Amino acid sequence: MHTSPFLGELIGTTVILLLGNGVVANVVLKQTKGESGGWIVITAGWAFAVTMGVFVSKAFGSVDAHLNPAVTVAFAVATNDYSHVVPYITAQMIGGFLGATLVWIFYLPHWAATPDPGAKLACFATGPAIRSTGANFLSEMLATLVLILGLAGISSKNLGELAIGVGPYLVGILVWSIGLSLGGTTGYAMSPARDFSPRLAHALLPIPGKGSSDWSYSWIPVVAPLVGAAIGGFLIRLYAL
Amino acid sequence: MHTSPFLGELIGTTVILLLGNGVVANVVLKQTKGESGGWIVITAGWAFAVTMGVFVSKAFGSVDAHLNPAVTVAFAVATNDYSHVVPYITAQMIGGFLGATLVWIFYLPHWAATPDPGAKLACFATGPAIRSTGANFLSEMLATLVLILGLAGISSKNLGELAIGVGPYLVGILVWSIGLSLGGTTGYAMSPARDFSPRLAHALLPIPGKGSSDWSYSWIPVVAPLVGAAIGGFLIRLYAL
Amino acid sequence: MHTSPFLGELIGTTVILLLGNGVVANVVLKQTKGESGGWIVITAGWAFAVTMGVFVSKAFGSVDAHLNPAVTVAFAVATNDYSHVVPYITAQMIGGFLGATLVWIFYLPHWAATPDPGAKLACFATGPAIRSTGANFLSEMLATLVLILGLAGISSKNLGELAIGVGPYLVGILVWSIGLSLGGTTGYAMSPARDFSPRLAHALLPIPGKGSSDWSYSWIPVVAPLVGAAIGGFLIRLYAL
Amino acid sequence: MHTSPFLGELIGTTVILLLGNGVVANVVLKQTKGESGGWIVITAGWAFAVTMGVFVSKAFGSVDAHLNPAVTVAFAVATNDYSHVVPYITAQMIGGFLGATLVWIFYLPHWAATPDPGAKLACFATGPAIRSTGANFLSEMLATLVLILGLAGISSKNLGELAIGVGPYLVGILVWSIGLSLGGTTGYAMSPARDFSPRLAHALLPIPGKGSSDWSYSWIPVVAPLVGAAIGGFLIRLYAL
Repeated sequence: MHTSPFLGELIGTTVILLLGNGVVANVVLKQTKGESGGWIVITAGWAFAVTMGVFVSKAFGSVDAHLNPAVTVAFAVATNDYSHVVPYITAQMIGGFLGATLVWIFYLPHWAATPDPGAKLACFATGPAIRSTGANFLSEMLATLVLILGLAGISSKNLGELAIGVGPYLVGILVWSIGLSLGGTTGYAMSPARDFSPRLAHALLPIPGKGSSDWSYSWIPVVAPLVGAAIGGFLIRLYAL
Repeated sequence: MHTSPFLGELIGTTVILLLGNGVVANVVLKQTKGESGGWIVITAGWAFAVTMGVFVSKAFGSVDAHLNPAVTVAFAVATNDYSHVVPYITAQMIGGFLGATLVWIFYLPHWAATPDPGAKLACFATGPAIRSTGANFLSEMLATLVLILGLAGISSKNLGELAIGVGPYLVGILVWSIGLSLGGTTGYAMSPARDFSPRLAHALLPIPGKGSSDWSYSWIPVVAPLVGAAIGGFLIRLYAL
Repeated sequence: MHTSPFLGELIGTTVILLLGNGVVANVVLKQTKGESGGWIVITAGWAFAVTMGVFVSKAFGSVDAHLNPAVTVAFAVATNDYSHVVPYITAQMIGGFLGATLVWIFYLPHWAATPDPGAKLACFATGPAIRSTGANFLSEMLATLVLILGLAGISSKNLGELAIGVGPYLVGILVWSIGLSLGGTTGYAMSPARDFSPRLAHALLPIPGKGSSDWSYSWIPVVAPLVGAAIGGFLIRLYAL
Repeated sequence: MHTSPFLGELIGTTVILLLGNGVVANVVLKQTKGESGGWIVITAGWAFAVTMGVFVSKAFGSVDAHLNPAVTVAFAVATNDYSHVVPYITAQMIGGFLGATLVWIFYLPHWAATPDPGAKLACFATGPAIRSTGANFLSEMLATLVLILGLAGISSKNLGELAIGVGPYLVGILVWSIGLSLGGTTGYAMSPARDFSPRLAHALLPIPGKGSSDWSYSWIPVVAPLVGAAIGGFLIRLYAL
C-alpha cells in the first residue's frame, strides 16, 4: 500500500480531531491534568492540532492537505475544479470520525469521572453559547470566511517566496487567531469533518452517562461553513489571489 | 473589479478590527466561551489579528499593508513621500468602521446578555485604566513609537534576507509584545483606525443597553499615536534604517 | 575533547530535563515565582525545553538530536539501521539523570518548603491522572505514536525545503501540541530518558520529605513509548515518508 | 549622527528594559489592564521584549546585539577577543537605566495606586523567592549558562543556513523557555544591565511609597551571570561551536 491524497486527507483529519478534541477533553473532563486550563489552552491546542494535521497529512501523501470539507469547497469554487470534492470530503469525514473515536479511547477513564453530559458532548461536537439560529449561522459562516481568506493570504504569491515548511505553522496561527477572537459564540466548528463526524461518534460510542447529541443544532456547523467557504472561494476567484 | 492598494488597506483593516475587537468581545462580554480568558487571551488575539490582517491585505492587492494611519504617517515622514497618506488613511478608517460593525453582528446575542455598558464600549474603543490626560497621551505616544521602531527593525536590511512570508507573523509578535508590556495603561490603541472608527460605530449602532462613547477621551488615541509615529518616522529617516 | 554525537545526545537530553522538569518544579513547588501557573505554563515550558535541547545538542555535535530513546527506536525501525541504538540511548539515559539532578539543585530551597510528596515526585517523573494500567499504557503508546508521525511530518521531503534552523522550533510546537491535547491522562512522558532516569534520581537524591518513587507505575512510561515508537517507525518505513 | 554598535547596544537594551520591566509593571501594579495576568504573561512579555530589543538594536547599527553584559563576556571568552567588552557593557548599562526610567514614566499614575513597596521594586529589579545566597547564586549562574549555550545552539553552523530574520524570534523563545522553567527561584535576571541599572533607577527616581532597593542582594544578579557566562564562553571555545 502506498501513500495517496485520499490517505493523506484521512490521516491528517484524524490527527486534527485527535489533538483538537483531545485538548477539549483535557480541559473540560474531570480529573485530567489540564482540567480548567481555560480558553488559551483550548485555542492553542486546536491551533497546533491543525498544524500537526497538515504536517502528518503531507507526509502520508496529501498534496493539498485541506483536511476540512469547507476548505475543499472553497478551493474548488476558486479554481472551478471540482474533481477532488467527493474523494477529499469522504476521506475527511472518515478521518473526523476516527479522530473523535481515538479521543474517546485516549481519555477512557475520564468519561465516567465526569458527571456533566454537556461537557462530554463538548469533547465531540460544538454547541452555541447562546442558542439563536440566525446568529449562530452567521457566526459559523463568517468565521469560515475569515479562515478561507486567511489561507488565501498565507499562500498568496504577493508575499514572495515563503519557506514552505513553515506554512503549516502559519495555518495553525490562523486557527489560533479565529479561535481566540471568533470562537466565543459557537466554538468555531468551521468544518463538517470537525463537527458532524465526531457528533456521529458521540451518538454511536458507549460513553458512560452521555446525554443528547443535540442533532437539532447539527446542521448549522455543516451548512454555514460550506456557505462561508463558497463565498470565500468566490472572492478568491474574483480577486485572483 | 481588481485588487488595489486601497482595497487591500480597507479589507486588511477590516480583518484586524473584526479579529482584534472580536477577542475583546469574547473575553469581556457575558456567556461567551472565552469569558474572563484574561490578558494573555486578549493580547494573543490582537497579535494574530494583525498578522492575519497583513496576510489578507496583501492578498487583496496591498503593497505596504500599513493598516494603521500612524504607520502610514511614520513611513511618509521616513521616506518624505506623502502621496499615499490620504488614500491609505481613508481606506483604513473605513475598514476600522466595517470591522467594528462585523464584531457587533458576530456577537449579536451577547450584547443584551451583558449588563455593563463599559464592557460593551471596550469591545469598540480603548479607555484609560487611570484617567490622566498627560500620562495617557504619553502612553499612547510611546507605545506607538515602539511599534514604529519595531516595524523598522523587523524590516531592516541589516538583518539580511528574511523569508518574507514570515514577516506578518513577526509583526504580530511585535504587537503581542507591546500589548503584554505597554497595554496596561491605555489599552494600546496606537491607531485612529482601531479607536476612532470603532468608537463611531459604537455611537451609531443600536447596541442594547450601551452607555457613553466617551468622546472626551477619544482625541488621545488619535493624536498621540500620530505624534509618536511622526517621531518614529523622523528617527528612521535620521538613522537610515 | 571534541564534540561527538554521544556528547550531543547526552547534553541535549540534560538540557531538556533541566528545562522540562524545571517548569514543573516552578509550577508545583511552593514559594516559586511560577507557583500555580497552570497547564499553559507547563506545556509551553516543556515545548521550548525540547526546542532548546535540540539546538544545544546540535551545537555539541549531535547529528540526529533524538534526545529520546523512543525516537531513536522509531528511526532505527524506519531505516532498519540499529547501529545507533545502544550509544544514543545510553547517552540519553545519562542525560536524563543529570538534567533531573540539576533541577534538584536549581530549586534547592523549595523542596523543604513544599509539604506534598506527590508534588515533589511530579518534578521528576510522570504519574497517571487516573490509575488504570490498560488506559495508561494506551495513552503513552498513542501519544508517542503521534510524536513520531509528527516528527516524520516536520522533516518530510514532501514539504519542500525547510529553513533548517526553524526545525527545532517546530519540534517544540509538536511537543506543545501533544502536551496540550494528550497530556491530560498520564502527563505525556513518551520517553524513558524523561521518566525512568529522573525517577531514579528521585529515588537516590536526598530530597527532604520525599515519598515513594512509585516504581510500580514506572514500567509504563518506558515500555509503552517504545511500543508506540516501533509502530510509528514501522508506519514510516511502510509509507516511505 | 549615524548608527553605530554603541548606539545599537544602548537603544536595544533600552527597548528590552522598557518592554521587559513593562510587562512586570502591567502584572504587579494595581489598576492596570494586565493586573494579575500571571506567569505566562510575564514570561511571554520578557521573551518578546528581547526579540524586539534585538530587532531594534540591529536597525540602529548593532552588529552583535548582545544587549547584556553577560552575553558580551561569554562571546569575548569564546573568541578570546575582549575589544568590545568595555564599550558594549557601557552602552548596555546606560540602556538598562534608560529603559527602567521609561517604565517609570509609562506607568506613572500606577505607582501611587499600588501600596506594596515590594511590587514596585519588582518592576525594576529581581529578588529571590527564597533568600539563600548559595542557592540564589547558583540559580543565576546556571540560568545564564543555559542562556549562553542556547544562543550558541541557535547560531550554530551545524544547523545549516537559518533565515537570519527569524533569529531574534528564536532568541526570544530561548528567553521564554528559561523564564518558564528557571525563573521560579530568582526571577532570571541573567544580566547586570537588566538588574543593576534598573535598581539604580529605583533608588534614584521619585517613586511614591517606594521601599528599599535591596542592595544587599544586588551583587548576585551581577556576579553570578558573569560567572555563568564565562563558563559558557569557555565551553563554547572548547567545543568550537
